[in-house]
Amino acid sequence: MGMTIVEKILARASGKKEVSPGDIVMAKIDRAMVHDITGPLTVNVLREHNIEKVWDNERIVILFDHQVPADSIKAAENHKLMRNFVKKHNIKYFYDIREGVCHQVLPEKGFVAPGEVIVGADSHTCTHGAFGAFATGIGSTDMAHVFATGELWFKVPETIYFNINGELKEFVTSKDVILYIIGEMGVDGAVYKACQFGGETVRNMSIASRMTMTNMAIEMGGKTGIIEPDEKTINYVKEAMKKHGTEREFKVVKADEDAEYEEIIDIEADKIEPVVACPHNVDNVKPVREVAGKEIDQVFIGSCTNGRFEDLKMAADFIDKHGGIADNVRVIVTPASREEFLKALKAGVIEKFLKHGCVVTNPSCSACMGSLYGVLADYEVCVSTSNRNFRGRQGSLKAEIYLASPITAAACAVKGEIVDPRDL
Amino acid sequence: MGMTIVEKILARASGKKEVSPGDIVMAKIDRAMVHDITGPLTVNVLREHNIEKVWDNERIVILFDHQVPADSIKAAENHKLMRNFVKKHNIKYFYDIREGVCHQVLPEKGFVAPGEVIVGADSHTCTHGAFGAFATGIGSTDMAHVFATGELWFKVPETIYFNINGELKEFVTSKDVILYIIGEMGVDGAVYKACQFGGETVRNMSIASRMTMTNMAIEMGGKTGIIEPDEKTINYVKEAMKKHGTEREFKVVKADEDAEYEEIIDIEADKIEPVVACPHNVDNVKPVREVAGKEIDQVFIGSCTNGRFEDLKMAADFIDKHGGIADNVRVIVTPASREEFLKALKAGVIEKFLKHGCVVTNPSCSACMGSLYGVLADYEVCVSTSNRNFRGRQGSLKAEIYLASPITAAACAVKGEIVDPRDL
Repeated sequence: MGMTIVEKILARASGKKEVSPGDIVMAKIDRAMVHDITGPLTVNVLREHNIEKVWDNERIVILFDHQVPADSIKAAENHKLMRNFVKKHNIKYFYDIREGVCHQVLPEKGFVAPGEVIVGADSHTCTHGAFGAFATGIGSTDMAHVFATGELWFKVPETIYFNINGELKEFVTSKDVILYIIGEMGVDGAVYKACQFGGETVRNMSIASRMTMTNMAIEMGGKTGIIEPDEKTINYVKEAMKKHGTEREFKVVKADEDAEYEEIIDIEADKIEPVVACPHNVDNVKPVREVAGKEIDQVFIGSCTNGRFEDLKMAADFIDKHGGIADNVRVIVTPASREEFLKALKAGVIEKFLKHGCVVTNPSCSACMGSLYGVLADYEVCVSTSNRNFRGRQGSLKAEIYLASPITAAACAVKGEIVDPRDL
Repeated sequence: MGMTIVEKILARASGKKEVSPGDIVMAKIDRAMVHDITGPLTVNVLREHNIEKVWDNERIVILFDHQVPADSIKAAENHKLMRNFVKKHNIKYFYDIREGVCHQVLPEKGFVAPGEVIVGADSHTCTHGAFGAFATGIGSTDMAHVFATGELWFKVPETIYFNINGELKEFVTSKDVILYIIGEMGVDGAVYKACQFGGETVRNMSIASRMTMTNMAIEMGGKTGIIEPDEKTINYVKEAMKKHGTEREFKVVKADEDAEYEEIIDIEADKIEPVVACPHNVDNVKPVREVAGKEIDQVFIGSCTNGRFEDLKMAADFIDKHGGIADNVRVIVTPASREEFLKALKAGVIEKFLKHGCVVTNPSCSACMGSLYGVLADYEVCVSTSNRNFRGRQGSLKAEIYLASPITAAACAVKGEIVDPRDL
């Protein structure tokens, strides 16, 4: 019987010839990541169990992205605790407050390759599936187990295959595609499934756009998102490794021809419109035109979902083309990483944002998690390119978050209200 | 009897022919500024007294710089309260989260001119004395009085004249000069005095460097700092007004030849070395070489004291010339305003910082006030270009802050410890 990509990766990682959905396997971990919020929890569990040694100081990545630069004494103490841990265990790959959001930085530095098993103590770790890896978010206690042993058990998930074909309309991006899918599936429509995205539309997407897709697999309950690696993937991964001295062998894993999927869902990409996920659930997806006219207070362009160069560029160009942003709106732009910041800076993108009065912050999780900065007051409305619009996610429980693509977010910034980019 | 600049300004503003130190005058205010921390306090006082109308909606400037973008629901609510106040009273000059630090933005937008009386609900309002205005920080209750009536009482201060001559050594900046002066005077050495800075050295300084001097007059207790306007001043002010549509008449006020100073203090600028203000007082000033070797954790380059283009450029160039920053140090760079950010960006300064792994944030008060970001943990040490090193100012009560010039801060960033820039 043939296997899906995810089944093949988990079989390899657990030393088995074959696995089937539902099997419990103990898999070897290729890369494990914690950040400044989850790292201290992991370290505390290790301490409680008197674990003095980590399994492999070259397979752990520690990175600060949530509270950077430290926004409280507590955050500063957490950072210090993690820096001491890095020193004590001689962790080779440590990124202090400067590099950006973990899910962007890991692939950027060459830590993600096809066929690998990657765990991160952050729910959007599924992003890395864009590179044909099996990647999933785990809790800090599980992470302590990984730090100690280099292994973790998984139930092999069924795979749902989203077969996406057709050309995207103007102003429709991969963010609209994934929001559309989540709207159709519901927030619990793919619980513990591997969500594989394939088809001509996905093959035509840039790596950045693909990362937006896999990033949000968790928002329909997915155990992971995954995309079959192709030449684009391999080029990206090899270049990243070369640039950052993280070269290693990897094996491109593709599904067997007779792989069995729980479901194959056909999607006609050319029928998808610009959409928004309305408050307070990611599956509350509507065409932008249906909620047009809603007044807004803030626009956030950034996050591990949509803070990459192509996202920033399309938003800046759109704002610039339309002569700037509305007076009643504040626009917060946060590059996903220092590298993406530099790319945008060199291409004149940052200058455009600044010229039009957008606030450009340091690479971080920024407004996405509603405590660093960009926090909303009661009854404020934010259009956000991030991945979660839960009640209270960006501040007040009475605030509202609409999730959208960077181009729709830019259009809303220009108009000062929710608007379809085609209507400007 | 002749009058000093400050006496002449206060005489004009209070409708008197002549005033003397110690006189109590009721002066008309030309410009009044509140920011996001002090604004809500002022508004609450107005409410308590049922004051429904402000004296002049074109003379008030409201600006957010301390908690930008909002870093808590409380901050977001404060911002909202102030936005509503702006709308209700039709305040003409309102700058939301994007423009930068008030003391930079006010002159930049043409709100500060020679001879004017400027009050701000922030202690470093004395910065504006660099333009030959009488400018001072006042409390939020006094500000409510100003908002209601456009007037405020002052005791006319004595003037201490710092007569500074000679050429500054390489790597010695106006920050070293003002720190040197504060070290000599003590933190209470000029309580309620007008601190006038003059002489050849000051005349040769750029406007930015002069602002660093007047900015810190409060740190020796001064009621204000002031510098006699010259051609540089007038050019700056006129250009700023023209650029931002704030043109108006102003009258350059210079001291009478027979003006009487409480004291004239001669300073030989060519004898000043690079200095630092050591914890926990601004007057604890020592030559950098005396504390060289002290290990540091963080460097902060920014603030209303030293976050302007020339500061950023000298730091970035120094870091770049020496091949980058030390591994053990995090460097936070915060342009003082959006305009300075743009200037630095266009000149390649921001790229240099990013390339070397510095964290470049949005224009704001940043690490200076230890709650937005850049907060220090216990026992951490920061070299900061800001103006206050009080215990707890940047976070933990057990942290240490050393105040220095941008070039010294850059040198410390390169070495990872306190070092005189001449010794690298």
